[in-house]
Amino acid sequence: MDEIKVINKFLTKLAYDKSSLDLKDDVFFNKKNNLVISTDTYVEGVHFIDFKKPKLVIKKILRSSISDLFCKGVKPKYYFISAAGNKLLFKKNILKKITNSLKEEQRKYNIILAGGDTVFSKKITITITSVGFAKKIIYRKKSLINDDIYVSGNLGDSFVGLSILKKKQNTKDNNYFISKYYKPDLPHNILSCLNYYASSSIDISDGLLIDLDRLIDRKKVSFILYLDLVPISKKLKSLLSSKKLKKINFVSKGDDYQILFTSPKKFRNQINKFSKDNRIRITRIGKILNHKSKSKIIDETSKEILAKNKGYLHEF
Amino acid sequence: MDEIKVINKFLTKLAYDKSSLDLKDDVFFNKKNNLVISTDTYVEGVHFIDFKKPKLVIKKILRSSISDLFCKGVKPKYYFISAAGNKLLFKKNILKKITNSLKEEQRKYNIILAGGDTVFSKKITITITSVGFAKKIIYRKKSLINDDIYVSGNLGDSFVGLSILKKKQNTKDNNYFISKYYKPDLPHNILSCLNYYASSSIDISDGLLIDLDRLIDRKKVSFILYLDLVPISKKLKSLLSSKKLKKINFVSKGDDYQILFTSPKKFRNQINKFSKDNRIRITRIGKILNHKSKSKIIDETSKEILAKNKGYLHEF
Repeated sequence: MDEIKVINKFLTKLAYDKSSLDLKDDVFFNKKNNLVISTDTYVEGVHFIDFKKPKLVIKKILRSSISDLFCKGVKPKYYFISAAGNKLLFKKNILKKITNSLKEEQRKYNIILAGGDTVFSKKITITITSVGFAKKIIYRKKSLINDDIYVSGNLGDSFVGLSILKKKQNTKDNNYFISKYYKPDLPHNILSCLNYYASSSIDISDGLLIDLDRLIDRKKVSFILYLDLVPISKKLKSLLSSKKLKKINFVSKGDDYQILFTSPKKFRNQINKFSKDNRIRITRIGKILNHKSKSKIIDETSKEILAKNKGYLHEF
Repeated sequence: MDEIKVINKFLTKLAYDKSSLDLKDDVFFNKKNNLVISTDTYVEGVHFIDFKKPKLVIKKILRSSISDLFCKGVKPKYYFISAAGNKLLFKKNILKKITNSLKEEQRKYNIILAGGDTVFSKKITITITSVGFAKKIIYRKKSLINDDIYVSGNLGDSFVGLSILKKKQNTKDNNYFISKYYKPDLPHNILSCLNYYASSSIDISDGLLIDLDRLIDRKKVSFILYLDLVPISKKLKSLLSSKKLKKINFVSKGDDYQILFTSPKKFRNQINKFSKDNRIRITRIGKILNHKSKSKIIDETSKEILAKNKGYLHEF
């Protein structure tokens, strides 16, 4: 059983307080106490290749955790680390590296270590719990027909980085791509934009299409997405053209940690202005349609792409 | 390096917000938001023997987590589960057992699942984060000279249970002891007693003497503890006498999840009354002395026990 089935079939019935959002959003949100919490577990060999680069691995998993709050329009304030690890993790010089790396993250994102736990285990498994305070959050599944679909930053760089690390790809910009994999640029300055204009939002951890499918309520709406508009970096553009690779095979592979959100058409000008004023790339890439339409992706030649492949999207 | 060294040397400098209590108490307490959080990780083969009894294992680790809040005088309200596990964990019938077991715990302690994460991993590693709301908590290290030392419930049963599971012990009451290991009786009705009368408190997870040492501020105070007064069950008493075993080798082995607390002498009558009115065993077992005295344990024959053995206590 995959995670979603496990949650739907068993755990949801235990989560009958509405703060848990039926375990179907990125976070727990307790309105009465303005409390927002997200918790994620990362396993060696599954979520990160190994622990040979502790400074980078710890940055990646911390960013992936606080990303859940950012994408809901919430500033993370505290984080907890629970680390199960072997002697490799608890060596002095490794701990020093991790501490310094976390210190850099704390400065960059203005967050503070609040607690945690360290235990011994053969495989390294790390759980990060992020905590923030907010009067409201942006939910999933609240987009309306005719809303625009936006995404922050660029997509695909992180996947190229991972492919390089796995020796499945080689480029002239290896270091650039690897750095995007380990240190995704969280769009943390986008929060007020989300809070003013977004009707729904999610962070892209598993892939543009999978996460877009999670963002919308399929019973009520569908989407049209223009592949041509999906933002990628100059370096990825140059890689695609030099090796004649297809864009669709790169922009929906996950690990991007950019924010995907919807917003009513009337806010287009404001979002454009916000993007320019704050120098954050925010790109309109599609539109929400009624549920009678089939969700579709339009490729560069105006053809519809059948996106049944699970790598692209669960199912339409 | 052990956990305490890791925390002191590296992590404390990252936790400069006072809510983290310097990572030296059982919980995170954010006064401004009345927020109390505890997070703990449990590893197969380390914190629980194996996962052959999922219903019991999940009860034990959940209770061990919420115990951190109870012992601070705080009612847990929500819990998060992050589970890394193999196919054994994510089988339908196992998940059903876990769900039913959690449902029982939710009813017993009036708590609700709030979120979590499930990921694949060879070894089973589970992190539980417990959340409660409170205007104040009972801290460690706030006991004063002449305070009494109290403990709730009985000690030692859980250790016998673990020894039986490890085939190192065999008794006529095996089921009783094993049940105390898996399902420690959390003294959840003691909260108002703690909030009215306790000057400091901790839950006994690692062992009476180790946790007593953590409870006090060794620079300011010491303790005297009367072994004779340490409460044990009738079944443990009968085991000790029939096999001629020493009490000291059973009551400080941990996994008890009873609450150890200190209180000024003037509250003795009130605590006695609370204990009777609420039918909770609360036993006075010692006293806080000034730091010039050496901490000591007095055995049944009024002799001082040298408790240098790490199994009893780190060091005096």
